[in-house]
Amino acid sequence: MTVGRPVALSRDEALALDRSDALAGFRERFLPAEPGLIYLDGNSLGRPPRAARDRLLRVVEHEWGERLIRTWDEGWFELPRRIGDLIATSCLGAAPGQTIVADSTTVCLYKLISAALDARPDRDEIVTDRHNFPTDRYVVEGIARSRGLTVRWLDAEPEPAAIEELVGERTALVTLSHVSFRSAAIADMAAINERVHAAGALVLWDLCHSAGAIPVELDATGTDLAVGCTYKFLNGGPGAPAFMYVREEHQAALSQPIWGWIGRRDPFEMEQGYVPADGVTALLSGTPSVLGLVAVEEGVRLVAEAGIDAIREKGRALTSLAVDLHEAWLAELGFTLVTPRDQDRRGAHVSVAHPRGRGLSRALIGAGVIPDFRPPDMIRLGLSPLTTSFADVWDGFDALRGIVAAV
Amino acid sequence: MTVGRPVALSRDEALALDRSDALAGFRERFLPAEPGLIYLDGNSLGRPPRAARDRLLRVVEHEWGERLIRTWDEGWFELPRRIGDLIATSCLGAAPGQTIVADSTTVCLYKLISAALDARPDRDEIVTDRHNFPTDRYVVEGIARSRGLTVRWLDAEPEPAAIEELVGERTALVTLSHVSFRSAAIADMAAINERVHAAGALVLWDLCHSAGAIPVELDATGTDLAVGCTYKFLNGGPGAPAFMYVREEHQAALSQPIWGWIGRRDPFEMEQGYVPADGVTALLSGTPSVLGLVAVEEGVRLVAEAGIDAIREKGRALTSLAVDLHEAWLAELGFTLVTPRDQDRRGAHVSVAHPRGRGLSRALIGAGVIPDFRPPDMIRLGLSPLTTSFADVWDGFDALRGIVAAV
Repeated sequence: MTVGRPVALSRDEALALDRSDALAGFRERFLPAEPGLIYLDGNSLGRPPRAARDRLLRVVEHEWGERLIRTWDEGWFELPRRIGDLIATSCLGAAPGQTIVADSTTVCLYKLISAALDARPDRDEIVTDRHNFPTDRYVVEGIARSRGLTVRWLDAEPEPAAIEELVGERTALVTLSHVSFRSAAIADMAAINERVHAAGALVLWDLCHSAGAIPVELDATGTDLAVGCTYKFLNGGPGAPAFMYVREEHQAALSQPIWGWIGRRDPFEMEQGYVPADGVTALLSGTPSVLGLVAVEEGVRLVAEAGIDAIREKGRALTSLAVDLHEAWLAELGFTLVTPRDQDRRGAHVSVAHPRGRGLSRALIGAGVIPDFRPPDMIRLGLSPLTTSFADVWDGFDALRGIVAAV
Repeated sequence: MTVGRPVALSRDEALALDRSDALAGFRERFLPAEPGLIYLDGNSLGRPPRAARDRLLRVVEHEWGERLIRTWDEGWFELPRRIGDLIATSCLGAAPGQTIVADSTTVCLYKLISAALDARPDRDEIVTDRHNFPTDRYVVEGIARSRGLTVRWLDAEPEPAAIEELVGERTALVTLSHVSFRSAAIADMAAINERVHAAGALVLWDLCHSAGAIPVELDATGTDLAVGCTYKFLNGGPGAPAFMYVREEHQAALSQPIWGWIGRRDPFEMEQGYVPADGVTALLSGTPSVLGLVAVEEGVRLVAEAGIDAIREKGRALTSLAVDLHEAWLAELGFTLVTPRDQDRRGAHVSVAHPRGRGLSRALIGAGVIPDFRPPDMIRLGLSPLTTSFADVWDGFDALRGIVAAV
């Protein structure tokens, strides 16, 4: 039980929390899910803003349909930087001109990891952790193999002291997730950056489970590089393009490996020889997906309108309710809380482990409550502050305790 | 003047060609452009199918909105292969299981060029041509620089004899465009493949200006690798994801460099260590863009329904009319035809050069006729068989000759 606050053990108490929720009105800004569905997976796929549907219609009918190719000069070319800046300034604690939206998270990771390694050619080690998201680990493995580098694996979620032990004069890059996709634990970005920089290495943060859920301070913490997805708490749509951040002071020196026409200076002169465009535009490669980008912009606009601090506050309250309900109902049914109990140390999802987690997760989905399952035994409940109500949390946990008792 | 066929020098004759056009009905399957606009740039950005708008609405409201994360298992994961197979079998002369849609054309080129070079580790040269599309050239340059390879440049559009002179025992890969983005000249794929293979090298074809415009025979010509975009003659939308083809016999041996979770075997087991998925699925890296993919599928469906042979026939007729009008009207006004006169040797666009091409192109756009301009002096007119009428061609050329006379 979280110290100092009441536990909403009755559904009426959860409803009362919803009535006093300053962000409650944002739920109406999203398209409806199936009637009765309790969606606790906004950390895998955020829900569609109504504005995204309307914007897509306008883009298809007016911009693509009527204006056609001319729209590239009338706004499409600006989208990657404009949306990057909106994410940066509303969620990432980053000044404009350092963030751009393009490609999948995986391709973005590949570009920035490659660029970082090229910037430390005399070093041959990459540090990451076994709990990092799979695609982050696989990208690192692929690059390490092709370059003959060594991966130094941390076997736990990253703590500053553990990172300090792993880094040294051979470390080129440390790449970690800011919020663990498993436990929701928040890594100490500032303290880790300091240890990494003391070793002369660069640091790249994966912000997939942070962006749009908790405030990030990229500029203030001295972060070198970051990547994050837009289809979770930013509600950008399935497979939406991801963002890359490159600290301004590194932009001139870092070069990403996938040279394409959209990242070149004066692309439509179509000249011989690649010359990178200025600033973060050089992170682009091919023609960016306009349909993907405009949906992202509408998702980010809602986050910016609500404000990341208010979102963070509600995320703390939602996860606190979930932790309390776990303690009150689930702990005695064989569950373990994977997520930190300290609300300042967790993001906006809560994971609970159970030996029969895989089957329970399936049964929960059958009962109209959507979590996701993460092997080997984790049920992960995403509590997306703009779309999840306190009653949703109560109902979801109530369904889960009922299923455990029944199965 | 094209030998053996009448020149439609009057607008009535062009209208008569439209009346006898078996594909004329397809124009109604696309959303309308601005009233009065003559759009001759379907080779840069194809127009939106009405079905794409309707599909996007269904995907946003029902799949993303109502079904949410469950739709990945209910169809989204199949999209990259299913659409790849549809393109392959309807347009590329390729059996299923060799083509997949994902990432931008540039990223797709990067993946397949890298994979090809890894498969020829004892060779240190890449052959391409100075007339190749800019992004193709830049990707090659970036990879060559990072690996210390030599690029051997052909200074002309590719002919089999010229390629034979450039390839040898040091050649790892030859990468060329099938239809030139400048002249629309079609390269002799079969003959070039033979010369490349005789030297023990691999060949990669860029099909951006072929796919959906002219039949391609990837399987029959022994092509190793191909990449192509979907936003031109396949009408997939601005920045739509591209496709990759890897000949079945190469799939086990080739490994692309951007290892991500969606290309891994059993991605949702989230295990340690990357193990590629079977077949072309291993070409995937990150989560594919669903909004981009579904729009592509609707565009490709229209092409499949019309049939690539009928599309090719109309493309021949449209470009023949354009060539005839150039000869009759433009040649004496200082224009040069860049596109081959032989209708079997050109794709579905026609390029004309003029010393004042840049200004004329701007004036043409001001007059409501949309071509594109390619430096230094080329006006490129894309004649997309599903959406361009013979009257469009007549009106476009009529406007151009009027502008030249007036400027």
